[in-house]
Amino acid sequence: MSIEPAHHHGLDGRFADVRAFSLAICEPLQTEDFVVQTMPDVSPTKWHLAHTTWFFETFVLKRFEPEFKPAHPAFEVLFNSYYNGVGEQFSRPHRGLLARPTVAEVFAYREDVDARVAALLKRSDDPEMLGVVELGLHHEQQHQELMLTDLKHVFGFNPLHPVYKPRVIDSTETASLGWWSMPAGVQQIGTSMDEGFCWDNETPEHRVFVDAFQLADRLTTNAEYLEFIEDGGYEDPNLWLSEGWSKIQESGWAAPLYWRHQDGEWLNFTLSGLREVNPAEPVCHVSYFEADAFARWAGYRLPTEAEWELVASSHRISGNFASEGHLHPIAGSGQMFGDVWEWTSSSYAPYPGYKPLPGTLGEYNGKFMANQYVLRGGSCATPAASHVRATYRNFFPTAARWQFSGIRLASS
Amino acid sequence: MSIEPAHHHGLDGRFADVRAFSLAICEPLQTEDFVVQTMPDVSPTKWHLAHTTWFFETFVLKRFEPEFKPAHPAFEVLFNSYYNGVGEQFSRPHRGLLARPTVAEVFAYREDVDARVAALLKRSDDPEMLGVVELGLHHEQQHQELMLTDLKHVFGFNPLHPVYKPRVIDSTETASLGWWSMPAGVQQIGTSMDEGFCWDNETPEHRVFVDAFQLADRLTTNAEYLEFIEDGGYEDPNLWLSEGWSKIQESGWAAPLYWRHQDGEWLNFTLSGLREVNPAEPVCHVSYFEADAFARWAGYRLPTEAEWELVASSHRISGNFASEGHLHPIAGSGQMFGDVWEWTSSSYAPYPGYKPLPGTLGEYNGKFMANQYVLRGGSCATPAASHVRATYRNFFPTAARWQFSGIRLASS
Amino acid sequence: MSIEPAHHHGLDGRFADVRAFSLAICEPLQTEDFVVQTMPDVSPTKWHLAHTTWFFETFVLKRFEPEFKPAHPAFEVLFNSYYNGVGEQFSRPHRGLLARPTVAEVFAYREDVDARVAALLKRSDDPEMLGVVELGLHHEQQHQELMLTDLKHVFGFNPLHPVYKPRVIDSTETASLGWWSMPAGVQQIGTSMDEGFCWDNETPEHRVFVDAFQLADRLTTNAEYLEFIEDGGYEDPNLWLSEGWSKIQESGWAAPLYWRHQDGEWLNFTLSGLREVNPAEPVCHVSYFEADAFARWAGYRLPTEAEWELVASSHRISGNFASEGHLHPIAGSGQMFGDVWEWTSSSYAPYPGYKPLPGTLGEYNGKFMANQYVLRGGSCATPAASHVRATYRNFFPTAARWQFSGIRLASS
Amino acid sequence: MSIEPAHHHGLDGRFADVRAFSLAICEPLQTEDFVVQTMPDVSPTKWHLAHTTWFFETFVLKRFEPEFKPAHPAFEVLFNSYYNGVGEQFSRPHRGLLARPTVAEVFAYREDVDARVAALLKRSDDPEMLGVVELGLHHEQQHQELMLTDLKHVFGFNPLHPVYKPRVIDSTETASLGWWSMPAGVQQIGTSMDEGFCWDNETPEHRVFVDAFQLADRLTTNAEYLEFIEDGGYEDPNLWLSEGWSKIQESGWAAPLYWRHQDGEWLNFTLSGLREVNPAEPVCHVSYFEADAFARWAGYRLPTEAEWELVASSHRISGNFASEGHLHPIAGSGQMFGDVWEWTSSSYAPYPGYKPLPGTLGEYNGKFMANQYVLRGGSCATPAASHVRATYRNFFPTAARWQFSGIRLASS
Repeated sequence: MSIEPAHHHGLDGRFADVRAFSLAICEPLQTEDFVVQTMPDVSPTKWHLAHTTWFFETFVLKRFEPEFKPAHPAFEVLFNSYYNGVGEQFSRPHRGLLARPTVAEVFAYREDVDARVAALLKRSDDPEMLGVVELGLHHEQQHQELMLTDLKHVFGFNPLHPVYKPRVIDSTETASLGWWSMPAGVQQIGTSMDEGFCWDNETPEHRVFVDAFQLADRLTTNAEYLEFIEDGGYEDPNLWLSEGWSKIQESGWAAPLYWRHQDGEWLNFTLSGLREVNPAEPVCHVSYFEADAFARWAGYRLPTEAEWELVASSHRISGNFASEGHLHPIAGSGQMFGDVWEWTSSSYAPYPGYKPLPGTLGEYNGKFMANQYVLRGGSCATPAASHVRATYRNFFPTAARWQFSGIRLASS
Repeated sequence: MSIEPAHHHGLDGRFADVRAFSLAICEPLQTEDFVVQTMPDVSPTKWHLAHTTWFFETFVLKRFEPEFKPAHPAFEVLFNSYYNGVGEQFSRPHRGLLARPTVAEVFAYREDVDARVAALLKRSDDPEMLGVVELGLHHEQQHQELMLTDLKHVFGFNPLHPVYKPRVIDSTETASLGWWSMPAGVQQIGTSMDEGFCWDNETPEHRVFVDAFQLADRLTTNAEYLEFIEDGGYEDPNLWLSEGWSKIQESGWAAPLYWRHQDGEWLNFTLSGLREVNPAEPVCHVSYFEADAFARWAGYRLPTEAEWELVASSHRISGNFASEGHLHPIAGSGQMFGDVWEWTSSSYAPYPGYKPLPGTLGEYNGKFMANQYVLRGGSCATPAASHVRATYRNFFPTAARWQFSGIRLASS
Repeated sequence: MSIEPAHHHGLDGRFADVRAFSLAICEPLQTEDFVVQTMPDVSPTKWHLAHTTWFFETFVLKRFEPEFKPAHPAFEVLFNSYYNGVGEQFSRPHRGLLARPTVAEVFAYREDVDARVAALLKRSDDPEMLGVVELGLHHEQQHQELMLTDLKHVFGFNPLHPVYKPRVIDSTETASLGWWSMPAGVQQIGTSMDEGFCWDNETPEHRVFVDAFQLADRLTTNAEYLEFIEDGGYEDPNLWLSEGWSKIQESGWAAPLYWRHQDGEWLNFTLSGLREVNPAEPVCHVSYFEADAFARWAGYRLPTEAEWELVASSHRISGNFASEGHLHPIAGSGQMFGDVWEWTSSSYAPYPGYKPLPGTLGEYNGKFMANQYVLRGGSCATPAASHVRATYRNFFPTAARWQFSGIRLASS
Repeated sequence: MSIEPAHHHGLDGRFADVRAFSLAICEPLQTEDFVVQTMPDVSPTKWHLAHTTWFFETFVLKRFEPEFKPAHPAFEVLFNSYYNGVGEQFSRPHRGLLARPTVAEVFAYREDVDARVAALLKRSDDPEMLGVVELGLHHEQQHQELMLTDLKHVFGFNPLHPVYKPRVIDSTETASLGWWSMPAGVQQIGTSMDEGFCWDNETPEHRVFVDAFQLADRLTTNAEYLEFIEDGGYEDPNLWLSEGWSKIQESGWAAPLYWRHQDGEWLNFTLSGLREVNPAEPVCHVSYFEADAFARWAGYRLPTEAEWELVASSHRISGNFASEGHLHPIAGSGQMFGDVWEWTSSSYAPYPGYKPLPGTLGEYNGKFMANQYVLRGGSCATPAASHVRATYRNFFPTAARWQFSGIRLASS
């Protein structure tokens, strides 16, 4: 995570653009939609809008604005997510119990902070401040993805099946499945801070030994996953990690999140409402346990993050991102970027020689490096191509399903 | 609960008035305030508005309107509280997870049903229908009280301490404590269906033997309760029912709900915001366990419901109800009606010979007759004097504190 | 609970007898059987043996023995059940996690305390001490019943279905159902301390008004209860108290505890092992909720405790107690005493004018007077006729099923 | 896990020896000690004895014994730990609720199965059978370690602080801390099935790139860990993984398991009873979270499992194992084997090309490969040097503390 950006040029414009995109995401919403938290992992849209603003207030204004005064004395605690270095935090599972501040008040909070950051950007080119603004924008983009995944959960929970945005495209062509191969050898993965923005968890660049492997040239489809279901995949303990099998017993999982079996038909709740499962689309909203079990059933395995990165680094970063407006994975081939985050078999761990950022911002990544698995490539809810990289490491716990997470197979 | 009202006269007017009062309660609210559910006992305002409407739709329109069509196919389940006779119910603790229908849609639902009921009332005087409308209005009044108590919980949970309505009055005069006496004897309590509206649980009128007793002529005050606290009341197991003592250990209760000790001062969150505890006011928001422990500490006991009713039946029904606009108990004397619901030591049980209403409406009262205790007299959140009676039996579990519940002492 | 017994005569003999009966209960046991706690309500046999000994050590020896020294410094906490006046208590749900003291050590503890109490009884006739010894014996008898009910739970949980004691009798004759009637009137119930031993909760004698009623002259049988089951009793919410219905949903109750449906047959686990349900026997191990639902289904109701007592007071106290050796209810008529504890519809509450015993022993009864219901008459696990009375009030929470609890119907 | 052992020679003798060692572990026990389960992770000694016997019955006798009959029809379910391939399993957290079978019955079960396996070993040299017997012995040795760790938990929970075995040695000499270094390079780790017994998770041998690193030449001591505690280690969120910090808040961890602060002194419960913390001993019973936080505080890190193995492979396998009789870590240097299991920073994952054993025995290792971390080197509760190897991979979840788990530091 480089906090010394090479160019000030355009940062003010990008600040305005990125901040505006958060509001654009809210356009289809009713006030009520901003408030609700359907599970502890989900945050209300209102909270995301305020928290990303708090980030700029806390790490930029408080530090770099002369005569800083907090926008509201209670916000420091209310909108702190997990920065112990800043102080106490309002309890995460209770974010949906806050009627106030209202949505209008949160919008006003954004406007106030935006104006003050814009003013700062005009009169200062302190590289440290610019670096934190840059970081804040990438942080905001991550929350834009969460806003979409969390809204999907809020809408998906609702018996009225609200439509966030009508569907744009619906391809039913399935690409055939091919394989990319790489020979064994010592390779470089990761990146360093001097090649444009990156998160600290992508550093440092380092050597790994990777055996010869093959990686699927497209994502696993709904059709393939349905075969797994129909073959009794969810009923055969031999296919599952022990903890995954317990989870199935306890939660009754029998299909990806948002699928439901109704009158003999498989339906899929999407941000465009409830519709039939499209067999050609990449399967989505599966946990690590499901991805792993599917791969075992199929006679393959999940790739390691090193394998994934070695292939991805030769691909152009383009694909089905939120900026395309589909907000749902679409049938295709390649798809190393966009559509769905791809589970890897790699536990989220520090790279050899990893050093977190100094100070409170060092809490961003390092402290989550246990009991989570790495996902790669971005999804249809990731704001834009500019937000991802071949080295980008996303991470979620093994049972998480509400992200746009899918499967790419590998073999040795 | 008489379902054959003597007079149609004025029912249409009362229907309009009572329904309008629910909306009047919402006037100070922001949209966000309608959505939140801060604990399973609390329902969102939006839900109360829809459920009371569902009551008229289900028990009046569905049955008496020719060519009835449901307002929305999902509402039958969504807004059914606990009527198994009607069908499935949406899970109570999840009411606050529903972004939709929106508040505006719920208002539209009300308008639609109101118009249809008003039309029915114009063209029919079927006494059975009129009886159910009458019942629906009393049901709505009960929910008006719940709207206020639930909003207080939603606001009281919020770190911004929202003000629902500025304070009107603040008396600090404490009345001296006197006692009303009654000699021993066989007495009649309860009522019968032919003396105006009543709930089925108030019937039948029946004989009880009551020993000589004395009843306090005013409510226990905050000053008196503070003495109990300062005397270590919450730390002495000998004062508590065993289950109450466990509750204290587990929940850390050390004062009534909404009280907090801050910088050496006792503050009290009210619908008019956070302010100092007023020693002259009746203590409020205490559980049965606390009422019982206080009485034991004070050397008295709680009255039985029969004792309470025998005294109350000679009092005029007037007092500090929601219609007065204080929405908080005020210092005074007498107070048999209004201010706070008064815990009795009587377990909520059927009167000898009790028969629930026939059909689904019979689920209203009888099925709750276990592990709850009777409260009497109405509170400052009870809509109006017209809603209570000396025979009125309210009931809550022993640990409930979010109702406006207080203490009146008795002795033998 | 009279603590000034009229006669010292025979107390030493009774002390020896009652204490010996606790050991007699243990005769069929293996060491392992003394240790296990299958649910929080159940205590290990070892614990019962030690706790009843602790009772004599704490309330007799500690107070009346010159130069008292505790048997073991840790036992004061380990074997205190709920006497806050004595001090801290070892966590109840964790009693089954204690490998030590061993059974042999607990037996040695009993021997030590027995010898010391016997010595005291020889040299002193302090009426206060004698009163506490008397009380301790009744306390021990209550625990003898619990030892049997808890062992039944421990054995009933075990897939090997251990037999505690082979069956002695198996009657299949069902008595016809008749009714005892009483006219309306003011009656005396309860008792006073000067008529031999009683618990404080049975006092004072006091007047109640009781309407005319009828009480069944025998207990509800398994055959009758089976009819309720087969008529869909457990699937019809209209028959149930709301809290009972929730309990069914949550726990899957579909028959009394210890019944299981296997290969089309109803089996019943008894202290004599698993066998077929005997239709003629009184139904047993039902909760208050089940008793209440059955009565509603049958078109009757449960009696109040006053009604029960008025009838029982004219019956001789004899019946199927543990002393008979069946340890299971048997078919018959009358049965006001023994066989099964009979649920009444009366919430467990203080009688008017009730005063708990002074000091720590006052914690015995009063503090449980909320959210429990009164059962009357003793059961086949109650040690002997000498332990019960027409005025005896047992009490358990509404969902408790592991006691030998059954049903007697009443009507108005 | 080689299931085709090179030599039959001596397997019958080893079978007898290993089985006898399980009984030797039980010698100091009272019957009650065999029954109790103090937390879900702990199994009763009785269960371990039966389960290891069940293993031989199920995987050897059932398959290879002509005219096999099960020892008891209920044991197949009761003593199956987690083999879905065999069938249903008795609920793990309820193992401590089983009074029966008795300890004596379990001993008889062992004798029966032992005799039958011994007979088989005499008359058959089917290499597959011999392989499973070999496997069963290693399985039994793993349970011998668990018997000791579980008994420690059972005794450690007990307020009477039972002594399992008096202390033998108590060294207070701390070795100075030195470092072993290795240069960067591609290395081989893991092993193959043809070099004597190993578990399947240790295979296959494969190449990894390892950067230059240093590994501490002794374990972290209690003195060093105390410094961490006294420096506020448990109060500084910056030292902890996020999940570890939550765990501290929730569980109140403030020292290793079995430490308690009493009258200003740190005490340590050991299998030889409660005594003062010995500063020179290796710290023990810490979770992954604590090991990781300590390393961060000390300015170092935990080693990866590859780093650990590369150093260990040049060490002789000897040390403080259970066979030495201390059953507690002792001060020293080197200590790559024995004393305490050493947490590595490596998530437990399949080696590249890993294949689980075919059939039900394939459930042994592979299905646990998520959300656990690798520990290396064996402990003072590991039966003997013959049970461990440089390639041996033990694994536990990040919050586990009841194993003899400790810390060895590393740096880059």
